[in-house]
Amino acid sequence: MAIKDLTQPQVERLLKKAQDYAVNPAKFYQHLNHIIVANLFFEDSTRTRFSFEVAEKKLGCHVLNFSAENSSMNKGETIPDTIKTLEQLGVKIAVIRHPDDHLLETLKNESSISFINAGAGKYEHPTQALLDLMTIKQEFGDLKNLTVSICGDIKYSRVARSNVHLLNMFGIKVNICEPEELRVKDATLDKLVTKKTIDEALPESDVIMLLRVQSERHDGQELNKAEYLKQYGLTAARLKKAKAKTIIMHPAPINRGVEIESDLVEHAKSRILKQMSNGVYMRMAIIDEIAGTM
Amino acid sequence: MAIKDLTQPQVERLLKKAQDYAVNPAKFYQHLNHIIVANLFFEDSTRTRFSFEVAEKKLGCHVLNFSAENSSMNKGETIPDTIKTLEQLGVKIAVIRHPDDHLLETLKNESSISFINAGAGKYEHPTQALLDLMTIKQEFGDLKNLTVSICGDIKYSRVARSNVHLLNMFGIKVNICEPEELRVKDATLDKLVTKKTIDEALPESDVIMLLRVQSERHDGQELNKAEYLKQYGLTAARLKKAKAKTIIMHPAPINRGVEIESDLVEHAKSRILKQMSNGVYMRMAIIDEIAGTM
Amino acid sequence: MAIKDLTQPQVERLLKKAQDYAVNPAKFYQHLNHIIVANLFFEDSTRTRFSFEVAEKKLGCHVLNFSAENSSMNKGETIPDTIKTLEQLGVKIAVIRHPDDHLLETLKNESSISFINAGAGKYEHPTQALLDLMTIKQEFGDLKNLTVSICGDIKYSRVARSNVHLLNMFGIKVNICEPEELRVKDATLDKLVTKKTIDEALPESDVIMLLRVQSERHDGQELNKAEYLKQYGLTAARLKKAKAKTIIMHPAPINRGVEIESDLVEHAKSRILKQMSNGVYMRMAIIDEIAGTM
Repeated sequence: MAIKDLTQPQVERLLKKAQDYAVNPAKFYQHLNHIIVANLFFEDSTRTRFSFEVAEKKLGCHVLNFSAENSSMNKGETIPDTIKTLEQLGVKIAVIRHPDDHLLETLKNESSISFINAGAGKYEHPTQALLDLMTIKQEFGDLKNLTVSICGDIKYSRVARSNVHLLNMFGIKVNICEPEELRVKDATLDKLVTKKTIDEALPESDVIMLLRVQSERHDGQELNKAEYLKQYGLTAARLKKAKAKTIIMHPAPINRGVEIESDLVEHAKSRILKQMSNGVYMRMAIIDEIAGTM
Repeated sequence: MAIKDLTQPQVERLLKKAQDYAVNPAKFYQHLNHIIVANLFFEDSTRTRFSFEVAEKKLGCHVLNFSAENSSMNKGETIPDTIKTLEQLGVKIAVIRHPDDHLLETLKNESSISFINAGAGKYEHPTQALLDLMTIKQEFGDLKNLTVSICGDIKYSRVARSNVHLLNMFGIKVNICEPEELRVKDATLDKLVTKKTIDEALPESDVIMLLRVQSERHDGQELNKAEYLKQYGLTAARLKKAKAKTIIMHPAPINRGVEIESDLVEHAKSRILKQMSNGVYMRMAIIDEIAGTM
Repeated sequence: MAIKDLTQPQVERLLKKAQDYAVNPAKFYQHLNHIIVANLFFEDSTRTRFSFEVAEKKLGCHVLNFSAENSSMNKGETIPDTIKTLEQLGVKIAVIRHPDDHLLETLKNESSISFINAGAGKYEHPTQALLDLMTIKQEFGDLKNLTVSICGDIKYSRVARSNVHLLNMFGIKVNICEPEELRVKDATLDKLVTKKTIDEALPESDVIMLLRVQSERHDGQELNKAEYLKQYGLTAARLKKAKAKTIIMHPAPINRGVEIESDLVEHAKSRILKQMSNGVYMRMAIIDEIAGTM
């Protein structure tokens, strides 16, 4: 599943269902207690895996966890064959994170398993974009006439790509504010966004969405953190240029003092914790929608 | 538990119970919801562990997972002492995979825990043999007058050893077709089987059971895959010599293009996927039988 | 939570509740089935993690497991930020083992999550001390006028530290019997205990509590096991000096033949297995008490 595979009515249905779950945060629903879900994380991500696992358990699913360390899974076996094995074991839904940009497209006709994309290469992270949109809608209600500025390490960011496509679907204006040294040419992306500096973008933004600097993907290139914050990050000084109703978002994990000044994480404008809790409800909505079509 | 510890009536009971589970593949039974099962995999095998975990969860057991990476378990402690710890924690059944051929024999009198052998060295993999027999019975009904040819890397194969003993118990003729370079002297095995080439065996076989070439156990010796397939593997050309009712089996994971030509995995004669789903039902039957004696 | 944060009435309440659970060892209670517990083991300890996991599952909690291998959890993120993430995911209780002596103190005001200390550096292992006291109380009923001698590798032992504080709270006399080469200066500890050799301590002890030699913390220094046993360990010969009612305890895992002669582990005086089963009940009591205050 990629954002482009979703229609606007489908997204609206997910937003509504996720919001219903958010209204009762402590409630366990357990109505999917005959469904087996496999969490297949070929890249480590305890955070995202836990978010899915909580969503699955609140719905009553049975959960199988696989993470990259247990590398035997694919020893001498193709991933499509692994998926066929899981299908035979009774797995109905597989949540997959994998470094390959397009793995899920090659898998989708191999079995009856429904896939949820939990991060694919630098290409898509659709559940993050959906929970981000949910957070924006909770704040502004109406999605018309909004401007979202996505600031930071776009180059390797699947979060940015998924968000651009989804925000675009709802007619939300998207600014991209890239550090010079991480500038990327991406024709598909470029025609959907306006490129600005963070200082240009701030006064007109309803949402400032910061991205984590993915140092681990920059092959050993040393980052001057203080310099990065000063030039491209969100500082208290910079935030003064924002509108009264502007909110701060970040997909986490956060590098405090790099893409954002540490104190701003807990600022009244920050919706970073809200994004995390919304993640569980949006993932519950996605799983429930998929299970409803089985 | 090894195959030789089972009587024919016990096996027949397991076959019947497993088939009852197979009739309702989506059903969760949950009647063992007071039983704690520990899956102790001292060798990685996500596939087999998942098969057991699904079986356990369909029966309602509580599942504790241990895999070799978490190597602290035995730091300065003998395995029998680990088992006594698990007994005190309330574990009733332990599913064990271990490289040692005879570990389970040394453990069985150390505690009240019931053990299920999920693969021991090159010696036994009894649950695989039982699910294989279930698959054969589903196909032919009557087990009399059948011939099964086990082809490939017998040398390191616990699957082969367990199957030879179990097929023998039911009076099924067993051919062994070994590659010359992987030939093994095993007196116990040799007196129970007929040695043939795959070309000699094919015309008389009701079942062609292929084994995975366990390259990881051949200490760096490079395998010429195309040559192996041509000489010892199942090819479309070779399959023409088989009888109309002959079926293809393989315990998986499969090396496509090595022991079997890739397209044959999905051939109408293939029961490879069936074996995987039967694995869950047979493991449910085994766990349920053991729990019934507690 | 450290022992010093507990009052005597609180400990008595835990002892009573744990004993109630111990009376029905096979019973699953399941009354906490709306609670999500995260087991966060930054140091490997399958044994302690399993003890908590069984306790959590018997109470019906939903369990998220994290162990140090999945090191991505804190990639570029502080532990307090990780905890805030877990809080947003709905985690109510976190069981933490971490090499840092004082991590939990820095975390306790960061979120609404309740923490259970499953081992902190060399500083505290309070649930072990509580299950040890439960075992002593089962044996002697009245805790007055008892003498406990803790023998062995005190230097790196959080078990020893937690026990000294808890035994002290109940007016139990504590002897410390340290090997000369592992002698440690710890002013807080020293004023609560009497230092003796194991031979001096044995005749007056109601409980001989042996500690595991933590070879992995002695930076490659080779231990002469036979010599250690002879000088500082519990041998059959030495045990003859003990009183008729004296019991042997050990937090496990055991190095047989080092701190204790192998046969004595199964001696009639040994309560080592009892300690393990009590561990589950005490952890159930602790979790249940915490959940009751939410």
